[in-house]
Amino acid sequence: MSIGVGIIGAGIMGADHARIIAGQVAGAHLVAVCDADMGRAEAAARESGARRVIADPMALIADPEIGAVLIASPDATHADYAIACIKAAKPVLCEKPLAPTAAEGLRVIEAELTAGRRFVQLGFMRRFDPGYTETRALIDSRRFGAALAVHCVHRNLSAPPHFNEAAAIVNSCVHEVDISRFLLSAELVSVQVFRARRSSLAHFHDPLLAVFETSDGQLVDVELFLNAQYGYEVRGEVVCETGTIAFGPALSTEIRHAGVTATGIAADWRPRFAAAYRIQNQAWIDSIRSGKPAGASAWDGFIATTVTDAGVKSLGSGASERITREKKPSLY
Amino acid sequence: MSIGVGIIGAGIMGADHARIIAGQVAGAHLVAVCDADMGRAEAAARESGARRVIADPMALIADPEIGAVLIASPDATHADYAIACIKAAKPVLCEKPLAPTAAEGLRVIEAELTAGRRFVQLGFMRRFDPGYTETRALIDSRRFGAALAVHCVHRNLSAPPHFNEAAAIVNSCVHEVDISRFLLSAELVSVQVFRARRSSLAHFHDPLLAVFETSDGQLVDVELFLNAQYGYEVRGEVVCETGTIAFGPALSTEIRHAGVTATGIAADWRPRFAAAYRIQNQAWIDSIRSGKPAGASAWDGFIATTVTDAGVKSLGSGASERITREKKPSLY
Amino acid sequence: MSIGVGIIGAGIMGADHARIIAGQVAGAHLVAVCDADMGRAEAAARESGARRVIADPMALIADPEIGAVLIASPDATHADYAIACIKAAKPVLCEKPLAPTAAEGLRVIEAELTAGRRFVQLGFMRRFDPGYTETRALIDSRRFGAALAVHCVHRNLSAPPHFNEAAAIVNSCVHEVDISRFLLSAELVSVQVFRARRSSLAHFHDPLLAVFETSDGQLVDVELFLNAQYGYEVRGEVVCETGTIAFGPALSTEIRHAGVTATGIAADWRPRFAAAYRIQNQAWIDSIRSGKPAGASAWDGFIATTVTDAGVKSLGSGASERITREKKPSLY
Amino acid sequence: MSIGVGIIGAGIMGADHARIIAGQVAGAHLVAVCDADMGRAEAAARESGARRVIADPMALIADPEIGAVLIASPDATHADYAIACIKAAKPVLCEKPLAPTAAEGLRVIEAELTAGRRFVQLGFMRRFDPGYTETRALIDSRRFGAALAVHCVHRNLSAPPHFNEAAAIVNSCVHEVDISRFLLSAELVSVQVFRARRSSLAHFHDPLLAVFETSDGQLVDVELFLNAQYGYEVRGEVVCETGTIAFGPALSTEIRHAGVTATGIAADWRPRFAAAYRIQNQAWIDSIRSGKPAGASAWDGFIATTVTDAGVKSLGSGASERITREKKPSLY
Repeated sequence: MSIGVGIIGAGIMGADHARIIAGQVAGAHLVAVCDADMGRAEAAARESGARRVIADPMALIADPEIGAVLIASPDATHADYAIACIKAAKPVLCEKPLAPTAAEGLRVIEAELTAGRRFVQLGFMRRFDPGYTETRALIDSRRFGAALAVHCVHRNLSAPPHFNEAAAIVNSCVHEVDISRFLLSAELVSVQVFRARRSSLAHFHDPLLAVFETSDGQLVDVELFLNAQYGYEVRGEVVCETGTIAFGPALSTEIRHAGVTATGIAADWRPRFAAAYRIQNQAWIDSIRSGKPAGASAWDGFIATTVTDAGVKSLGSGASERITREKKPSLY
Repeated sequence: MSIGVGIIGAGIMGADHARIIAGQVAGAHLVAVCDADMGRAEAAARESGARRVIADPMALIADPEIGAVLIASPDATHADYAIACIKAAKPVLCEKPLAPTAAEGLRVIEAELTAGRRFVQLGFMRRFDPGYTETRALIDSRRFGAALAVHCVHRNLSAPPHFNEAAAIVNSCVHEVDISRFLLSAELVSVQVFRARRSSLAHFHDPLLAVFETSDGQLVDVELFLNAQYGYEVRGEVVCETGTIAFGPALSTEIRHAGVTATGIAADWRPRFAAAYRIQNQAWIDSIRSGKPAGASAWDGFIATTVTDAGVKSLGSGASERITREKKPSLY
Repeated sequence: MSIGVGIIGAGIMGADHARIIAGQVAGAHLVAVCDADMGRAEAAARESGARRVIADPMALIADPEIGAVLIASPDATHADYAIACIKAAKPVLCEKPLAPTAAEGLRVIEAELTAGRRFVQLGFMRRFDPGYTETRALIDSRRFGAALAVHCVHRNLSAPPHFNEAAAIVNSCVHEVDISRFLLSAELVSVQVFRARRSSLAHFHDPLLAVFETSDGQLVDVELFLNAQYGYEVRGEVVCETGTIAFGPALSTEIRHAGVTATGIAADWRPRFAAAYRIQNQAWIDSIRSGKPAGASAWDGFIATTVTDAGVKSLGSGASERITREKKPSLY
Repeated sequence: MSIGVGIIGAGIMGADHARIIAGQVAGAHLVAVCDADMGRAEAAARESGARRVIADPMALIADPEIGAVLIASPDATHADYAIACIKAAKPVLCEKPLAPTAAEGLRVIEAELTAGRRFVQLGFMRRFDPGYTETRALIDSRRFGAALAVHCVHRNLSAPPHFNEAAAIVNSCVHEVDISRFLLSAELVSVQVFRARRSSLAHFHDPLLAVFETSDGQLVDVELFLNAQYGYEVRGEVVCETGTIAFGPALSTEIRHAGVTATGIAADWRPRFAAAYRIQNQAWIDSIRSGKPAGASAWDGFIATTVTDAGVKSLGSGASERITREKKPSLY
């Protein structure tokens, strides 16, 4: 009855997922870990207690002991592995983004349409963060009237060396793209990206300010600052007609020392979204057992790529760019 | 490999434990639920997906499919069931208190000493609350020098009809008793209970203020207010030589509406300590598998009862009461 | 030695200024109040203890007992009265804006240039708010590196009936225009105004989002929401290279009641900026005595109007508008 | 019409009062400063712009240009100077405490009774702190039912070398004594002082915990920690039947840097109570003009000394000490 899970990718994300699946989720067990770097795969397997290490991702997908696959490999490989899982009729939890571009993402949609069934849950874990779910519930309650605008802040300690402005949109801002759609139950129709003064500590133009408009006329502005130096911080505020809802990291322990009252800020996303990842992975396992999809679909992942495509275009043009509207297949 | 768990008691706590064991913990599955009220047992089993309902707690303890027992029945029954589990050599997670009085709690200690092994983890779940564990780590780091005093607040929306002043000490303050010992790594040596002005909304003298002294000279004061009307709130502050550490509920979503900026307060302990219960129950399952005890022991539960005994005595005398010092057996 | 002050305008602002000058400022006394509505002037005089009521603003300016004039009359009259004071060689504290348009504001500059001396302090009181002055000191310290971007929120309970989108820029956003220049020691070079989803409770398109660029490449975004319903709130965050500085209302009393922890939000700007107005008015009196100008000058007021002119233009065009750069005369 | 003020004492408090009277208060001017240390008196006079320095306090009190006297000299001299002012029929603002003991304080009461008029306002400035006045208004509104208990924290960076446990009660805790009476409109009837673990950084037993009972059955507990090292912090919480009111320093600017979100803590009482002192001194001047007493009376100062006398006694006995009840003369 317990579902056997295989994980492709044993980097930071993959190793974390291995730990969660093996040690914090009911109804599943970790069968195998796979990584191009066998040493890394073995380390993740050892730490989490996975039974096996498998060298070939396609072999992992085909393995009969493995009933569900979690994809945490490099972005460019997500679509291929997801498609292989769909063909093997195995449920997938795929880390975001679905693909670096909309064109590539579309292939996954086509595979699901061909299969006539949804297999992919996309790892937009924020949809499971207690702060975001509470915020969405408050918006949906219309207790404060309609939502009119959203302010978002997305800051990282520092960006990896291979990052650039486009990656800031495709890899980081994609979270705000999805969560805006989730919170507002609306589509994003245009985007304009502004450049703030460039930080002398960044190796590309950072920070950026992206301004989105939704199909319901709402504005969503996002500060993207990937070299903020002080820590990882994701928060925001939804402005409604009669009140606002501010979401952010859960704060508890407060220190008074050396002339300040202080609360800690995480160094990366793991403490900030630890609950979100755990709840997401449990929801994925539960959804496999119940047959009822949970979280973001491949379609949500695809739509996010159409938005980030437009964002990258605006980086070049400096102007507002319309976002291609796609017709949602009835499967989703 | 997965550990079969049986739960005795299907009241609020028992039903919550059933949900956690069945749906949020890795490495275990819920076999059966037991309650004097069969309808309540059946409801908890149905909701959590437990396979069976068992009428007799002793039958549950004896059941060969059940490898570990969670006791969430009325306080007065804890010791007897725990002793039965010890005799059956089955690991136990026993809700606090170990027993209403030290004399009764001592019987559990004797049973473990006879068995020559520890079987009981006591459900002082706060030891697993992220805020408390962070606070203890900060104290132990001595980053702010030695801990000198602790201020605690323990408020409930309203007390159940059968509660009285003594129950406020035995049932509620027992949490602060244990967590003070946990945070300070010290024993409590005296207690004096003061009565504040009595709330006209309480059916007994409420609130109380208890002042404890520790074996290291620290003071711990605890406001106990079981009819605080506004919600459930547990928080505090540890005063150290060069700084203080305030622990409390994790806050995130903030509402601005109708002339106030507001954050929600839970109505009872479940949202406040949801993480603590989940982590505690996972730690219990993990400890059974690893053979390494986790959390509070039966001895910790027994010591807590010696403290609350003295607290109840102070309620009567109005004076400071010494707490009996017990010699810790080498088993603990 | 004490400076005799006359106040033109006895509306909400004028009456407040009368109270401050008469009862909270050292080195000055209130001589007379003037208003088109004599009843209103008499009420303000009575409440503050002013000796006289004067019907004609020009008579007030000419009055030999009056050594300094505070202008709190309707916006369109500010420039004329300020020019009359300059001609009479009397120091002026003029409520913002200097004038509704840059063209009108320029006349005041010309009067001061002709006089060869500065007489006007412009009532951008935020420059005296302790939160803003602390923020500017932190920016100037470069403790967190260079300032890169500023996020501002400017919300009112509800806008007066005569307000519209343009007034939101000219009358409200003008505060953020001045304070951005003050905080960043930079000029604003472009502005683009976006419309959020329109609140159904507003009688014009509200809220707006204005995005400014500075001469140093910084971005300043301002949410203007004049019908926010829940209260008056002005706050923001300066994003620097290694840290951020959030400024906002001073919070102290915190209520726990009915399921929430809450801090109060003012209904209008008076409690929020009470300290700023008092400190500003004291600084004005002190500057008259010392001969050293304080706060914003007529030039600052004029520049603010060039920015709001461009903001109003962007409201019409929907595009980014360049802001006319003016050459600062050596007088300022 | 402007009231001429003379200040006795040019230490930290006296110099601050000189600055406030000369530069922040309407309706008064600073005539002279007096101090045993003439250099210190001259410095305070120069900085504040006082016209004269007077060597002899009695000469200052007698000076015809001086209509009101502010006493900020050492504690032991307060009563004598206050009595001299009463005899000279001059209004006094006297720094707390009225006297180091109740016996000495009683002499001031007798002088006012003999004069048949109140001349003394006691410098319990917290009664003018916006946080405390808001808290008292909320208590009096009975919006949250009756007040049942108060928790107070009183922390200093470090105590002066001449301080000891008794001084912590007489000099520091006296503020909580007065403010409890002010907030609760009740008398304190008993006090018991506990010693926490002694800080290794303190030259006397510090911190202490004082527990007071009021005539209405309320409890007031006060943590006194005069060597808290991290800063000056005064805050507390009033527990009412259906809600609580927490008062504390006004917070605004918030820094995010180096892994923490931080708000500053003052190094001493001056920033924390700057508004309180200014408002107090203005209220004193206004009360002289209106003839209506403001703030704490000599009686309030005397009662506070009866309470601190009992507190010092409890330091010695370790037990609860009753506080002498004094019959209030009709003058107060």
